[in-house]
Amino acid sequence: MKNDTFPSQTCSVARALEQIGEWWTLLIVREAFFGARRFGEFERNLKIAKNVLSERLAKLVENGLMERTDVRGRGNPRDYSLTDRGRDLFPIVVALMQWGDRWIVGEGRAPILLFDRESGEEISRMQVSAASGRPLSLEDVRVAPGPGADEAIRRRFGSPP
Amino acid sequence: MKNDTFPSQTCSVARALEQIGEWWTLLIVREAFFGARRFGEFERNLKIAKNVLSERLAKLVENGLMERTDVRGRGNPRDYSLTDRGRDLFPIVVALMQWGDRWIVGEGRAPILLFDRESGEEISRMQVSAASGRPLSLEDVRVAPGPGADEAIRRRFGSPP
Repeated sequence: MKNDTFPSQTCSVARALEQIGEWWTLLIVREAFFGARRFGEFERNLKIAKNVLSERLAKLVENGLMERTDVRGRGNPRDYSLTDRGRDLFPIVVALMQWGDRWIVGEGRAPILLFDRESGEEISRMQVSAASGRPLSLEDVRVAPGPGADEAIRRRFGSPP
Repeated sequence: MKNDTFPSQTCSVARALEQIGEWWTLLIVREAFFGARRFGEFERNLKIAKNVLSERLAKLVENGLMERTDVRGRGNPRDYSLTDRGRDLFPIVVALMQWGDRWIVGEGRAPILLFDRESGEEISRMQVSAASGRPLSLEDVRVAPGPGADEAIRRRFGSPP
């Protein structure tokens, strides 16, 4: 979807979605998490048209999520790697994967699993949790205006704690 | 973006994105997390056109993320509430919000903060973690085919552990 279909919103969810752009972005980022670096690797793994991939990668570079490096070789090959900003999308991609495993694919039928290299165990389920690590449900969480709240947010969620 | 622009992919990230549909979906879900139930509440908070909202809500109901209930009152008011499938998008929305706070808005300028009602402390940052709770970086995680892997995934990521 086009960015201009979003009204201006203070909320960071809306602003994150604007920057990520289209869903394709997260699939390219997922490929980078899985180790892809070369244009051809992304193309093969995503089965995506060259011109579309090219445009999406350029957008990722422009938004500071990936960086492009020229590498030695025939045909001016270029590597694409994630910046810190891009790497930090890891929890979002894992949360999406786990949601899909649970609600679309079904338990016990995950196509891909993620393991902690050190313990060899599966990673844990992404969950919203308290500072202590205790898992929090929706009802356990209170929304409050932050330091960057505008008038509308303050009116809606009351004064900061 | 239209579903048919995705090639068929086994990965649960792609399948989750197909079901969530457009970005708008997550903003409506965010509103429901914040307590919105009535059509007019979603409309006011999202500043979205009635016909667009109506279409999006119908899609959410169709995909089993929300359910609609007729309530008493003038003009046939209807409530929209999240199903378990929809509620389970909570970690995704929180991860997006925190990413936006960190990388777009900037630390210390978050428009909205989330607090644990019990301790009164801010919730912790969403992170990928081991079964033990230890935070994991991208490099700490190994990708392996799961029980639902197809031939392409097995070839790519090796045999299951």
